[in-house]
Amino acid sequence: MEVDELDKDDNDELSLVQRVVIENVKPEIQGGRFPIKRTIGEHVEVTADIYADGHDILRAVLLHRPVSQRDWEEVPMQPLVNDCWQAKFTVSAEGIHLYTLKAWVDPFQSWSRDFSKKFEAGQDISVEVLTGVQLVQAAAQCASGEDAQRLADWAGGLLRLGKQNLNQAAQLISNVDLNALMVVHADRSQATIYDKELTVVVDRERARFSSWYEMFPRSCAETAGRHGTFQDCERRLEYISGMGFDVLYLPPIHPIGRAHRKGKNNSEAAAPEDVGSPWAIGSKEGGHKAIHPELGTLEDFRRLLARAKEFRLEVAMDLAFQCAPDHPYVLEHKEWFRMRPDGTVQYAENPPKKYQDIYPLYFENEHNCELWEELRSVARFWIEQGVRIFRVDNPHTKPFDFWERLIAGIKTEYPEVLFLSEAFTRPKVMYRLSQMGFTQSYTYFAWRNTKSELTEYFTELTQTQVREYFRPNLWPNTPDILTEFLQFGGRPAFMIRLVLAATLGASYGIYGPAFELHENRALRPGSEEYLDSEKYQIRHWDIDNPDSLRALIARVNRIRRDNPALQGDWSLRFHPVDNDQLIVYSKTTGDVSDIIVVVVNLDPHHTQSGWVDLPVDSFQLDPHQPYQVHDLLTNARYFWHGTHNYVELNPQMMPAHIFRIRRLVRTERDFDYFL
Amino acid sequence: MEVDELDKDDNDELSLVQRVVIENVKPEIQGGRFPIKRTIGEHVEVTADIYADGHDILRAVLLHRPVSQRDWEEVPMQPLVNDCWQAKFTVSAEGIHLYTLKAWVDPFQSWSRDFSKKFEAGQDISVEVLTGVQLVQAAAQCASGEDAQRLADWAGGLLRLGKQNLNQAAQLISNVDLNALMVVHADRSQATIYDKELTVVVDRERARFSSWYEMFPRSCAETAGRHGTFQDCERRLEYISGMGFDVLYLPPIHPIGRAHRKGKNNSEAAAPEDVGSPWAIGSKEGGHKAIHPELGTLEDFRRLLARAKEFRLEVAMDLAFQCAPDHPYVLEHKEWFRMRPDGTVQYAENPPKKYQDIYPLYFENEHNCELWEELRSVARFWIEQGVRIFRVDNPHTKPFDFWERLIAGIKTEYPEVLFLSEAFTRPKVMYRLSQMGFTQSYTYFAWRNTKSELTEYFTELTQTQVREYFRPNLWPNTPDILTEFLQFGGRPAFMIRLVLAATLGASYGIYGPAFELHENRALRPGSEEYLDSEKYQIRHWDIDNPDSLRALIARVNRIRRDNPALQGDWSLRFHPVDNDQLIVYSKTTGDVSDIIVVVVNLDPHHTQSGWVDLPVDSFQLDPHQPYQVHDLLTNARYFWHGTHNYVELNPQMMPAHIFRIRRLVRTERDFDYFL
Repeated sequence: MEVDELDKDDNDELSLVQRVVIENVKPEIQGGRFPIKRTIGEHVEVTADIYADGHDILRAVLLHRPVSQRDWEEVPMQPLVNDCWQAKFTVSAEGIHLYTLKAWVDPFQSWSRDFSKKFEAGQDISVEVLTGVQLVQAAAQCASGEDAQRLADWAGGLLRLGKQNLNQAAQLISNVDLNALMVVHADRSQATIYDKELTVVVDRERARFSSWYEMFPRSCAETAGRHGTFQDCERRLEYISGMGFDVLYLPPIHPIGRAHRKGKNNSEAAAPEDVGSPWAIGSKEGGHKAIHPELGTLEDFRRLLARAKEFRLEVAMDLAFQCAPDHPYVLEHKEWFRMRPDGTVQYAENPPKKYQDIYPLYFENEHNCELWEELRSVARFWIEQGVRIFRVDNPHTKPFDFWERLIAGIKTEYPEVLFLSEAFTRPKVMYRLSQMGFTQSYTYFAWRNTKSELTEYFTELTQTQVREYFRPNLWPNTPDILTEFLQFGGRPAFMIRLVLAATLGASYGIYGPAFELHENRALRPGSEEYLDSEKYQIRHWDIDNPDSLRALIARVNRIRRDNPALQGDWSLRFHPVDNDQLIVYSKTTGDVSDIIVVVVNLDPHHTQSGWVDLPVDSFQLDPHQPYQVHDLLTNARYFWHGTHNYVELNPQMMPAHIFRIRRLVRTERDFDYFL
Repeated sequence: MEVDELDKDDNDELSLVQRVVIENVKPEIQGGRFPIKRTIGEHVEVTADIYADGHDILRAVLLHRPVSQRDWEEVPMQPLVNDCWQAKFTVSAEGIHLYTLKAWVDPFQSWSRDFSKKFEAGQDISVEVLTGVQLVQAAAQCASGEDAQRLADWAGGLLRLGKQNLNQAAQLISNVDLNALMVVHADRSQATIYDKELTVVVDRERARFSSWYEMFPRSCAETAGRHGTFQDCERRLEYISGMGFDVLYLPPIHPIGRAHRKGKNNSEAAAPEDVGSPWAIGSKEGGHKAIHPELGTLEDFRRLLARAKEFRLEVAMDLAFQCAPDHPYVLEHKEWFRMRPDGTVQYAENPPKKYQDIYPLYFENEHNCELWEELRSVARFWIEQGVRIFRVDNPHTKPFDFWERLIAGIKTEYPEVLFLSEAFTRPKVMYRLSQMGFTQSYTYFAWRNTKSELTEYFTELTQTQVREYFRPNLWPNTPDILTEFLQFGGRPAFMIRLVLAATLGASYGIYGPAFELHENRALRPGSEEYLDSEKYQIRHWDIDNPDSLRALIARVNRIRRDNPALQGDWSLRFHPVDNDQLIVYSKTTGDVSDIIVVVVNLDPHHTQSGWVDLPVDSFQLDPHQPYQVHDLLTNARYFWHGTHNYVELNPQMMPAHIFRIRRLVRTERDFDYFL
C-alpha cells in the first residue's frame, strides 16, 4: 500500500476495474522466483484462490506454453471448495515451460442463474429476457463467422420468444450449444491476468528415475597393483549394466596434483608411489579440461562414453571446482585464489583440519567474470565430449548465483544435461541449491535409520512443497560416508539400506564395488572414513566373490525397471505396523492395479515380525476377498485378507519384502487368477 | 529463471556477489502486497531464513522506520535454529511504518572463530594473526574519528603481539570492545538487502480494543410513538456509557426514500406513517451528506458527537453506499446506476428476492472516476463533522480496489479514522477486504455455538497469519441477525453469548436495547429477522426493565477495562475440559501475573459441570501450592490446586466464570495473601 502510488494512479486506472482476485497460486516457489521441476509426460496440477466481490459467476483458465511457443494453451479451471480452483496440464518437451492464470466475471452465466431463480419463482421475466438478448447480441458482435451468425440467430430467437412464450425462452437460455458459445465469446476485456508467469523446468526421465553406480576408474585394472584405465572401465561395463544401473559416475578423471599430495589413509606425507586424491585436481599435465595420463586419452574417454551407451549406461562426470597447488590456474591466474598475508595461496581448511593439497577458488574476487566464464567453459568442454550428467562436488561452498547462471546457461543450450548436487549441509542451503537449478540432490538418507527418522524425512521430501524443486538421490554409502549402521550391521545392513534406497527413492546410487562387497572397515572407531579408502589409493576388488550382493542389486533394479510405481517419489505413503523395527510403505502410479508395498526389517541382527495395516479402501481391494501379495524379491506369494496381515523377516535370509499387490480376477470359465 | 534476463545481466552484475539469502520473511502478507496491522505500542516480531553458501558467520539487522522518517532504525537479529533469525520492534505512532532486513557475511567473526580453533589445536598461527591485522586495519580505514584511532591501535597491537606473544594476541582478538567496534564498522558493501519494504498500518488503541453499542436513534424518544431525535440520543448517552461501551454506532442517519418504501416487518406496501429502512438512503431532503429532518440538524449531530465524547463514547457512522429511488444521485447521475432494458434503474435483488426500495451503485461504469470521488467526499464530509469511526455496510458488493483507494486515501490524511467491515460473506472475501484496509471486521461468531466450532474458528483468527491483518469484532446479534440460539435459549443464552463475545474478542458489540432486554421474537420460524424489526419501524424500549442484562454488561465491560489480558486477541488459548458443553480458554498480556481464565457453559438450559485442565507450567504456578481463582463476575474466590479442578455452572444463575488467577505471596511477616 504505497500511498503515493495509489494517489498517482487514481486517474489512469480507475476506468478499468479488475474485480477478480487470483492469489495463493500453487505450485509457486518463493513468489515465482524459482521454477518447479517436472519430467516429460508428467503433469502440473495448479490450484489458486479465485474470487470477486459480489455474487457473480466466474470463469478461470490455466494458461501454459513452452517458452519457445508464442501462444498460450488454455485449460478451463474447475472450482473446488472455498473459492479454490484447479486445473492441470502435461509437459511434453524438455526445456522451459510457462504457466499463469486468467479469470473473469461471466455476466451471461450470472444472469442465467438469476433468471432461472426468477422464472422458477413465477416472477414476470419479460424484462429479464431482454437483458439476456443484449448479452447474446454483444457476444455476437465480438464473434465472427459462423459463431457470430449463430449467436445473432439465438439473440433474435430469444427476443421473439420473450414476447410470445416465456417458457420456451427459458428453455432456449439453458441450451447447451448457446451456453458453450457464450463461454467461448465471453467478454474478457476486464479479466484479471495473474501477475506472474511461473516456470517449469522440464527434464528427461532420468532426472526423476535413475540408478547410479559410483566407481573409481583407477581401481578397475584386472590385476592388482596396476593403475586402472578407461579401457579397464569398458570391460567393467557389462558387470555394472548387469546389475541394472543406468548412470556410471566417475570421480574426477583429471591429472592429480603432486604438491602436498596426501598418502594412503589421508596421511600427510605421500610416498613416491602414492596416487593422491582425484579431487586434488591439476598438475603440470593439465587441469579441469585434461585427462589423467594413466587413465588414458580424451579419445579413450569418448570411447568409454560410447561403449557405456551400448550398455544403457550414461557416464556422469564430477565437477569439482577446486585446484591442487600445481594446477595450471594457480600459475596463470593467481587472482582466482585467496592469498594469505605471507604471500602463499590459501589452502582449504575446516579448522583445525587443513587440506593443503587443495586450493579453493575465490568466487568473490574482482575477476569473477573471467573465473566464472572459465568454469562454465569447463562444463561446456565435457558436454562437447558427450557428457550429459554432472555430479557437482560441494556446490554449497560456492555462491548460489554462480550455480544459477551456470546451470541456466547450459540448460538453455542443452536442456538434457542433468546436475546432481553433492551438498551435505544445512537443509535450507540444500533446498536453495535445488532452487538454483540442480536437477537432483544428495540427501540425509545415509543417516536416517529408524522408522520415525525415515518417515519424517521422506514425508517432508515427498509430501510438501519441497518436492516441486528438490529431487532426492539416495546413497547408502559414498567414498566419504561409511555409516555406523553399515560398519556394524554386517551383510544384512547393506541389504536393508539397498532396499530402502532403491524403493524410497526413484533415484538412488551406491559407491561400488565397496557396496556390493559390503566393505565395512572404517579408518578408526567413530569415523565414517573407509580404511584404505580409494580416495587415496588404488584398490583391487574381488567382484566375483560369491558373497557379493550383486545378484540382489540386479534383482532390485529389475523390479524398479518393471514397476513404474517405483519410478516416482510423490506417491510414497507410510503404513502402520505394530513393531518399531519394521517399516512399511507403498508407492503407486495412481492406477490401483499398480501398487507396490515395501516391508523392511530395520534391525540387521534379529528376526522381526508384526501386523501390517494396509488401507484396503484406498487400494480399492475388496475387504471380503483375499488378495495376493507377490514378493518380487523372492517370488513368494502370500494370500492376504483385509487390512491386518502378519509379516516376519529374518535379516540373514532377506530383510525385506517388495510386494506387488495382485487382485483376484474371475475369468469367464471361472478360473480364478491374480493379476 | 528468465533465461534471457540471466544472460543479459551477466556482465553487469557479476562483479558484486551477494552471498547472503534472505527469504521466508514473516510477517509478510501476499508477498508484501498488503500491510500488517498494529496499534500504538504493540511490537512487530519479524523472523526470516537467512543463510549463505559456505560456513562464514553472518550478521543481520531488522530495519524499520515511520514512513515520514528518512533513516532506518536498526535492530540486530538473533539466530534461532535452522537458519531462522528473529528480531522485533515497537511501533509508537499512528500511520504507516516500514520494515525490511539486511544481512552480510562477517569476515572478522568468521576469521576469529577459525583462529580460536587453530589456536586451541596448538597450530602455528603467526600468519593467521596477520589476516586479523588486515581485517582490523581495513575497518580502521572505513571508520572515522575516535573509532578509527582505536581500531588502528588495536591493529598495531595485534601486529606486535603476533611477533612476540601469540597467547596475548589470542586474548586481544577476543577483546569485547574490539569485537563490538568490528561489528559497528563491518564492511557491508556486499550486504543483501531484502528486496521488499514491508508495511505496517499503525492504528490507535481502539482499533484493537473496542466495545460497540448499536442503537437506532429514532427509537430513543422518551415517549412511545414519537420519532427519536439526536437530542433524545444525548439523553441516552449516560445509560450507554454506564454499561461501559466506548463506541456508539448509529445506523444511517440520512433522509429515507419514499419510493417503494417498505412497511413494518418488511411488507411491500408501506402505510403513510411507516418510517422506512434507514439503509434506503436519500430523498428530496438530500442524500448521503444530509441528515434525516426528524432526527435533527447537522448542528444537533455535531453536538451529539461532542456530548458523547464527554461520556468517553465515540459515535460510529454507517457508510452504506446505495440509494433509495428518490436519492438526488438518481436524478443527477443516472450514469452511476445500472439500467434495465426497459429504461428503469436496476434495483437490488437476491433472486428471487427484490429490494425495490434500494438501487445499488454501479462501480464498473465508465464514470467511476466521478462516482468514486463523490463517495470519497461523503466519507470526508462526515470526518469534517468529527466522525472518526465508520461501520461500512456490505463492502463485499463493491470492488476491492474501491475500498483500498478510499481507505488509504483517508488514512493518509486522518490515520485515526477506523473502518469496520460488515461483510458477511465467504471467508476469503472477508479476509481480502481486511487486506484492502478495513480496520476491523464482523465475523461468523454469531453462528459459532459449539465448543468445537468456537475453538476451530478462534484458533484460525488468533493463531494463524490471519491475525496480522484481520481484526475480528464479535457481535452476538445485529438488526439483521437474531440467531436460533438467542431465539430459543432465553435470558441465559444472551448471557452466554455476551460473555463469549466480550472475552473471546477484544472488540465486540451488541445491538441494543434489543440485546440487553433479550428480545428474541423472530419474524417467523426459521428466520433470523426480528419480529417488528427496528429496520422498518420505531420501537420503544423499556430500558429500565429489572430483567435487563444492563448490570451484567456493565460488569463485563468493567472487567475488560480493568484487565489488559482481555484487550488483545493474540494470547487466546483453549484448555481441555471433560464436558463438551463447557468451554475453557485463557488470555494474558504475557505477564504471568496477568492471566484471565474464562469458563462458559454453552448450554443455556442445564447446569453443566466438569474437570478443567490448566497448563500450570506455562502459567508458572507452583504445582505444590494452591492458587486462587477469583471470579470477577461474581467476586467469588476458589482455591485450586494443580492442573485438574472442578467447575459447575448453572445457566440460570451465571453461565460463566471470568477468573483472574491470583497466586500465593508470602510476606515477610508470614501472612499469606494472593496477588
